[in-house]
Amino acid sequence: MNPVVEKLELAEPHLANWLSTLGLDVEYVRSGGNTLFYRRADGTEIPVLDLVGGYGSVVLGHNNPEIVAYAKSLLDGGTPVHAQFSRHPYANDLAWKINGIIHREFGDPEPYSAIFANSGAEANEVAVKHAELDRVLKLAELLEGVAAHAEEARAAVGTGARLEVSAEALAALGVEGDPAQEGGEGIERVLAAVDRVNAERAGAAPVFLAPEGSFHGKLIGSVQFTHNPGYRTPFTALAARCRFVDVSRPEALTEAIDEERRSLFDLRAEDGTVRVVERELPVIGAFLLEPIQGEAGIRVFDRETARRIQDACATADIPIVVDEVQSGMGRSGAFFAASHIGLRGDYITLAKSLGGGIAKAGLTLVRGSRYRTDFELVHSSTYAKDSFSTLIAAKTVDLLEADDGKAYRLAETRGNQLLAVLEGLRKEFGDIVADVRGRGLMLGLEFHDQSGSTSEIIREQAGAGLLGYLLSGYLLRVHSLRIFPTASATNTLRFEPSVYLTDEEIARTEAGLRGLIAVLREQDGETLLHGGAASTG
Amino acid sequence: MNPVVEKLELAEPHLANWLSTLGLDVEYVRSGGNTLFYRRADGTEIPVLDLVGGYGSVVLGHNNPEIVAYAKSLLDGGTPVHAQFSRHPYANDLAWKINGIIHREFGDPEPYSAIFANSGAEANEVAVKHAELDRVLKLAELLEGVAAHAEEARAAVGTGARLEVSAEALAALGVEGDPAQEGGEGIERVLAAVDRVNAERAGAAPVFLAPEGSFHGKLIGSVQFTHNPGYRTPFTALAARCRFVDVSRPEALTEAIDEERRSLFDLRAEDGTVRVVERELPVIGAFLLEPIQGEAGIRVFDRETARRIQDACATADIPIVVDEVQSGMGRSGAFFAASHIGLRGDYITLAKSLGGGIAKAGLTLVRGSRYRTDFELVHSSTYAKDSFSTLIAAKTVDLLEADDGKAYRLAETRGNQLLAVLEGLRKEFGDIVADVRGRGLMLGLEFHDQSGSTSEIIREQAGAGLLGYLLSGYLLRVHSLRIFPTASATNTLRFEPSVYLTDEEIARTEAGLRGLIAVLREQDGETLLHGGAASTG
Repeated sequence: MNPVVEKLELAEPHLANWLSTLGLDVEYVRSGGNTLFYRRADGTEIPVLDLVGGYGSVVLGHNNPEIVAYAKSLLDGGTPVHAQFSRHPYANDLAWKINGIIHREFGDPEPYSAIFANSGAEANEVAVKHAELDRVLKLAELLEGVAAHAEEARAAVGTGARLEVSAEALAALGVEGDPAQEGGEGIERVLAAVDRVNAERAGAAPVFLAPEGSFHGKLIGSVQFTHNPGYRTPFTALAARCRFVDVSRPEALTEAIDEERRSLFDLRAEDGTVRVVERELPVIGAFLLEPIQGEAGIRVFDRETARRIQDACATADIPIVVDEVQSGMGRSGAFFAASHIGLRGDYITLAKSLGGGIAKAGLTLVRGSRYRTDFELVHSSTYAKDSFSTLIAAKTVDLLEADDGKAYRLAETRGNQLLAVLEGLRKEFGDIVADVRGRGLMLGLEFHDQSGSTSEIIREQAGAGLLGYLLSGYLLRVHSLRIFPTASATNTLRFEPSVYLTDEEIARTEAGLRGLIAVLREQDGETLLHGGAASTG
Repeated sequence: MNPVVEKLELAEPHLANWLSTLGLDVEYVRSGGNTLFYRRADGTEIPVLDLVGGYGSVVLGHNNPEIVAYAKSLLDGGTPVHAQFSRHPYANDLAWKINGIIHREFGDPEPYSAIFANSGAEANEVAVKHAELDRVLKLAELLEGVAAHAEEARAAVGTGARLEVSAEALAALGVEGDPAQEGGEGIERVLAAVDRVNAERAGAAPVFLAPEGSFHGKLIGSVQFTHNPGYRTPFTALAARCRFVDVSRPEALTEAIDEERRSLFDLRAEDGTVRVVERELPVIGAFLLEPIQGEAGIRVFDRETARRIQDACATADIPIVVDEVQSGMGRSGAFFAASHIGLRGDYITLAKSLGGGIAKAGLTLVRGSRYRTDFELVHSSTYAKDSFSTLIAAKTVDLLEADDGKAYRLAETRGNQLLAVLEGLRKEFGDIVADVRGRGLMLGLEFHDQSGSTSEIIREQAGAGLLGYLLSGYLLRVHSLRIFPTASATNTLRFEPSVYLTDEEIARTEAGLRGLIAVLREQDGETLLHGGAASTG
C-alpha cells in the first residue's frame, strides 16, 4: 500500500488519499472473468476476486474472451467508428434484437424505437428529454385548442350567447366585477385573463416523480432524479425538480400526482352559453424508477407496487421510465429485471453491461405509441451510435441470448446459491447482519449500524457513513476480495459478479465474509483499518 | 441508394428517411486515414474522402494504425477497464501530460485538476456542476458571514448602538414603519426581513452566460448553453437559464453581467451604528465559450474579444469554461485553440479526438485555485476514467506531441493550404461563396443564401434551412466527398479532416467544390438532389 507517489495527484487527489487510508488504493493491471489483478510494490501480481463487477458492467466477466476477440476483429477490419449521418444497419439490428426480447419477456408486440447514448446517465437524460418534448408538444396542442375555443366563444357572445363564469374562476383569473354583464367587453376581459394565466401556468417547469432511494446518474439533469441529498442538493438550482415518493405507502403516488396537478383555463360555447372550464395541464414529465434499486441498497420492487405505479401513471397519462442500467442485461435472471414484476416502461434505459465490459454504450428505448420522430431532429451525440460500441453491445446481447438464454439461467442459479450463503450468514449472525436482499446476481448484504461501536475506528467510520468502505478495505487486504457498498446505503455490501461465478468463488466469498463478521463481532477496528496491510503494500 | 429495407427502421427512422432523400444513406463498412468506404447495393466498396472527420473526432485519421495497434495491445493484455475506486496512475499521467501542454501554450504553471467523463456534453456538464458547487459553497460562506454579523448587530443594538436603515433598504426588505425608533424590537424586525429576503435571493437559480452561436452539447444541462433555439427551446423548462451575449459588441458582456447582478443584505456594526448594507450575491455560474465556434459556422474569436471576456469575467469573479471539445487536440495548429488568443480558462473541456477516433473520452480540467476537492465526493461515473479510453487518450496525446509537435505543424500547414483553396474559390465565385473562415484544420465555407433560387428544389431546401445537406448529398454522390454543414449554420460547409490530409486529397476537394459551385451557378437543383444517384445506389 502507499507506493511512492512520484507526482502530485491531479486526477481526483482527495479520492486517492481516502482510498489510501482504507487500503483500497491498489493499482489493478489486468482483469479476466471475476478476477482483477493488482501489482504490489515489489512487482508481484495478486489476484482479487471481484464481486463489484464494474457496478454491474461485466455481466459476462471482465475481458470476456469472445467479446475481446470480437472487439479486436472490429479494429482489424477498420470498423467505421465515426460515420455520423449515414446508414447504420447494425444499430437497427440491435434495436430489433432487444425488441424481440421485450416481446418475449413482456408479451407485448408493440415496437420500441431506439436512441443511442454514451452512458447510463446520458440514456436517462435522453428519456427525460424525449418525455419533455412530448409534454411540450402536447401542451402546444392544448393551447392551440384553447385559442380556437376562444375564437368560438368570442363569436358566440357576439351573436348573443350568455357568458357564465364561476366566482372561483373569476378569482383565479384575477378578473374583477362581473364580466357576464358587460357583453363584448366582458368576454374580452375574460379572454385576456385566460391568456395571461394560461401562459404563466404553461411556462412553469415540469416536475418529475421517482421513488425514494432512486439513482439515475449524476449529470445536471439526471442528478435531480437521484434521491441521495449528498449527490443532489448542491445542484438542485440547476434543473427541474423531482419529487421523491415513498411508494411503499399504497396511496402515496396518487396523492403526489394529485398534489402536483395543475390546470389551464378553457372556454366552452354550448347551447347559447359560454362557460369558463378547466383542463388538465400536463405538468408531470415522467415517473422514473429502477426495478431493482441499486445505490439505495439493492431493493427489489414487488409486483403489487409495480401494478400500483403502472395504474396511477396510466390514469394520469404519465410516462414511466424504467431504468435498467444496472439491473438489466440479464443480471436478474431475465434480460429485464422489470419483467419479473410485469412492469412495462414507456421508456427503458440500458448501459453498463451493454458495453460488454469494454465499450461505453447507452440506449434509450421509447414505446412506439409515445415516440416523437421530431426528437431525431433535435437530439444527437457525436460519440453515440458508433459502430465499435454498438456492435460490441449487439455481440453482448447475442452472448446473453445464446444457448436458449443460458446466461439468464446461470444468473438465477448462481445468484440463488450466493443468496443462500448470504441468508445463512444472516441467520447465523443476526447480531451483525441486518438483512439480505436482491435477485439473481444483484444482491445486497446489509450490516447493522455500527455508530455505537466500542471501537473508535468503527464508530468514526460508521458515523461518517463510511462503514461499508471500511469493510471493503479489510476484505481486500485480508481476503483478496473486492466488494463495495452501494453508494447511498453504505451499510449494504453489493454483489454483482459475472454469471460465470464458480462454486469455489462463492466459497471464497463466504470465507471472507465469515472473517469479516468475526472481526466485527470482536469490534476490532484496528484489523478492519490496518489488518493485512503488508500483503497489499 | 435506397437498398431494400428488410426491417422497419427502429433506430431513428425519420433521420434514415431524410438521409435517403438526399442520397446520404450509404452504409460505411470500414475506414482509414481520411477515407470511409461504403458498400454499394452490388457489394462493391467505394472510397469516400471524408472531411467531416467525426465532427472533429479523428485528428489523427480514422483507425490510426498506431492507435489501433495500441488498443489491440490493451485488449490483449486484459486491461482492467472496470476498476473503479482504485489507483489509476494512468489517469494522473494523462492529467500531467496535458498540464505540461497548458504550461507550454499558456505560459502559466498553475496546475489543473482532471475529472473524467464519457463525452463532450458530459465534460461540459461536469464543468458546470463544479462551478455550481463552487458557487453554492461561496454562497453558504457568505450567508454564514451574514448570520455572524446579525449576531454582532443584535449585540451592538443591545448595548446602545444606533440602527440606521435607508428608505431604499426598508422598501426592498418590506419593512414598514421606522425600526430605528423601536430599539430591540426594531433590529429583530430588520433581521427577520434580512433572513427572509436573503433566503429567497440565495435560493434563486443561477444564470450562465455564453456567446451567441454557442454549442456545448445536448444533454439536459448542456443543451441550455447551446444557442440554436431549435435544439434548446423545447427543453428550456428543464434546467437553469443561459443568457446568450453578442460579444462582438464590446460593452455587451459587462452590460449583461450588470443586468444579472443580484445582492444580499448584510449588517455592519461600526462606531456605535448598525447599518444595513448590500453584498454581491454570486448568481452567474460561469461564462462558457468555444474559442472557435463549431456549430455556429466555424467562427474564430479574436484576441481582443478574448481579452474583453477575460477582463469582464475576472472583474466579476465569474469562472470561464473554455470548451475545446471540437477545437482542441491540435486541430487549430496548437493543442488548445484558446492559446492562439491568450484565453486562459478556469475550466477547459476536451472530448472528440481525445478518444483517438476509437474510444469515448471526455475530460474536464479545473484550474487549481478554483478546484474543490469536495467535488470528488459528489460526482462520479461508472464508465469514466476507465483504462481503455484513458490510455487511448494518453496515446493520442503522445502521438500529437511526437516529433516536437509535428502534428500541430501539419494542422497549420495543411490547413493553410486548404484555406488557400477555399479563399481562391471565394475570390473566383463571390456570387456563390459568401465567406471563408477558420484556423488550421477547422475551416468553414459559407454559401450565399439560396432561398430565392430559381430552382424549386434549391429554394425548398434552402427555405427549410437544409441547403448544406443538399450540397452534402451532391458532393457524396457525384464526387465521393463527405462534407457536412455545421449544425446551426447550415449554409456553411465544415472541413475537419485529419492532419494527414494530402495534396491529392486537397485537389480532389477543390475539384468537387468547383463542380458544386458550377451546379449552383446553373441553379440545377435536379443534379444537386439526384445527380450521380446510380453511382452510390
